[in-house]
Amino acid sequence: MSNPSLLILAGDGIGPEVMAQVQRIIGWFGDKRGLKFDVSEDLVGGAAYDKHGVPLHDDTMARAQEVDAVLLGAVGGPKYDELDFSVKPERGLLRLRKEMDLFANLRPAQCFDALADFSSLKTELVSGLDIMIVRELTSGVYFGEPRGIFEEGNERVGINTQRYTESEIERGARAAFDLAMKRDKRLCSMEKANVMESGILWREVVNEVAKDYPEVEVSHMYADNGAMQLVRAPKQFDVIYTDNLFGDILSDCAAMLTGSLGMLPSASLGAPMDNGRPKALYEPVHGSAPDIAGEGKANPCACVLSFAMALRYSFNEGGEADRLEAAVEKVLADGVRTGDLMQADGGTPVSTSEMGDALLAAL
Amino acid sequence: MSNPSLLILAGDGIGPEVMAQVQRIIGWFGDKRGLKFDVSEDLVGGAAYDKHGVPLHDDTMARAQEVDAVLLGAVGGPKYDELDFSVKPERGLLRLRKEMDLFANLRPAQCFDALADFSSLKTELVSGLDIMIVRELTSGVYFGEPRGIFEEGNERVGINTQRYTESEIERGARAAFDLAMKRDKRLCSMEKANVMESGILWREVVNEVAKDYPEVEVSHMYADNGAMQLVRAPKQFDVIYTDNLFGDILSDCAAMLTGSLGMLPSASLGAPMDNGRPKALYEPVHGSAPDIAGEGKANPCACVLSFAMALRYSFNEGGEADRLEAAVEKVLADGVRTGDLMQADGGTPVSTSEMGDALLAAL
Ligand SMILES: CC(C)[C@H](C(=O)O)[C@@H](O)C(=O)O
Ligand SMILES: CC(C)[C@H](C(=O)O)[C@@H](O)C(=O)O
Repeated sequence: MSNPSLLILAGDGIGPEVMAQVQRIIGWFGDKRGLKFDVSEDLVGGAAYDKHGVPLHDDTMARAQEVDAVLLGAVGGPKYDELDFSVKPERGLLRLRKEMDLFANLRPAQCFDALADFSSLKTELVSGLDIMIVRELTSGVYFGEPRGIFEEGNERVGINTQRYTESEIERGARAAFDLAMKRDKRLCSMEKANVMESGILWREVVNEVAKDYPEVEVSHMYADNGAMQLVRAPKQFDVIYTDNLFGDILSDCAAMLTGSLGMLPSASLGAPMDNGRPKALYEPVHGSAPDIAGEGKANPCACVLSFAMALRYSFNEGGEADRLEAAVEKVLADGVRTGDLMQADGGTPVSTSEMGDALLAAL
Repeated sequence: MSNPSLLILAGDGIGPEVMAQVQRIIGWFGDKRGLKFDVSEDLVGGAAYDKHGVPLHDDTMARAQEVDAVLLGAVGGPKYDELDFSVKPERGLLRLRKEMDLFANLRPAQCFDALADFSSLKTELVSGLDIMIVRELTSGVYFGEPRGIFEEGNERVGINTQRYTESEIERGARAAFDLAMKRDKRLCSMEKANVMESGILWREVVNEVAKDYPEVEVSHMYADNGAMQLVRAPKQFDVIYTDNLFGDILSDCAAMLTGSLGMLPSASLGAPMDNGRPKALYEPVHGSAPDIAGEGKANPCACVLSFAMALRYSFNEGGEADRLEAAVEKVLADGVRTGDLMQADGGTPVSTSEMGDALLAAL
């Protein structure tokens, strides 16, 4: 049997640096745990634009469809700010999400014990925090038509369309309920049903799906109140299910609550392929951080933990994922810190590759 | 010359209770400061539905168009949760905003010195916080067409339309820049121009308007990053200008940072009327709080401070607004607290009317 295949798209900014450490970790699992992967690499985002004039080449797209999982670093940077909308780095990422049909975006917002003080929130409000946000990722206003900038009378009008079918809402909801069943069995759905009809349909479908999960306690919250409650008392949540745009904002809000963006991974999952594995793309929540790119300062942990999610969700290696996550926790507990995790009051931060060294040692 | 006119729409839940205290304050300004208002009262939200079968009667709408300013309490409650979308309490409020064309929603997120500890954020991150969020209030996805739930094939689809013309973006931007000029001369505009064409147009128009305000330092942020930055380091902001939906979420997020939702007012302003005053509606940011309604526990300060905003923005009585705001600060500094402002560790909260007493004494 051939090894499972991984496509690595390191992307822009700090992407390549953090991905280099993940490559070392992948190598370790091959050598020490007999978990060998066929790894290929390609370009996405600005890097792809520089070479091909598009943020994702068709060949790369085709390859992403074939592999067992894609690992992505980050896309974007000031160099590309003035590019036309259609070839901006983000379009490469959005194309991957859409064409691979990765409808369920899993964004854990977890607070690491050793880092609870890093949160801007009072420590007791976030220590032990463990939320799973499931964001619908392939529909809604990100992809709805009509869209664009049109002439109207003597001025222009910008239009985007929020659009959700019942089945789009439903499949994401099932992913979210399945996760809730493995966790604390509580799911909070967020929309603006008081203002938007798409939110009314959202709520109805969630309630319908809920009937298949009688053990899960379901609640509904308006998204504005959701933002408030995340800031006020984030530990009240277990799984949150919300749409593409609300999910974008609320998951970033939740991520920041943990105080350590450099630690947070994500998984974007689609339907099962012939081999039973879901279509999948894993990426850190942080961006390309152009301000520190190339300086060896970036924290590779979020990307490493994204690989841990790949082990768990794509390769059914929950035990190995636990092992890797434990290594990250150990390194943090030992006080190893990249610059983003330093407190104002001192210490010398380790470099990106030294963090990789520490993780390998801990493994 | 006749007195300026105020229409009071106390609404649902705690609305009538907090408004009763505002009425006392209005009376005080008439008696002691010679600022007399012609005050009329009417129904909105669930209260209007109960009487008229609609959340805003046409006569009330007509009256709102005539008066110099509307003061609104709060709308909504569980009793009305199952009502059809078209007659939900919120529709009354949305109709007022739309028909009065109140395009600029001013939401100060201010942290009162005496209450800095109430924030879930670390005290030093919020003490002295003073942000002004200007939310576009009459366009975008709240009102765009087409909208609704439609049949498509053998399922339903929920559709809403994000829609912004240049002039809609522009007039809100001017309101925001005008405010920035009176404050710290910094404006941050938030959208998702990396994903939405309406965001691209938004950014272009803001940059165009900025040319008329060379003294104002302008920046742009994606709304997801905006949510993060609000949580991470809110004091970096002066004025934030954003659209109706992002503004809904981000202003609630910012409000919660202050830790005291019961303290936050808002103003919704439109074009100048014949008398030069803007069309205007003032309301607290908090909701109708059905859980404590009728118990005399509600904090009237947000509604009182909304009246202070009316003094400033509708009646050009900035000095009297300062006086009222100072009274609120004094009362807080004296330790007077409604239940929402109590720390876990003790004291006896004052009632809604006792807070009113304290405010009158401080005036
Ligand atoms: C880069 C951008 C297109 C993307 C999004 O808006 O979805 C990012 O913010 C995210 O959350 O993954
Ligand atoms: C009550 C509701 C319709 C309203 C909104 O969504 O605008 C509220 O959340 C607000 O922010 O004023």
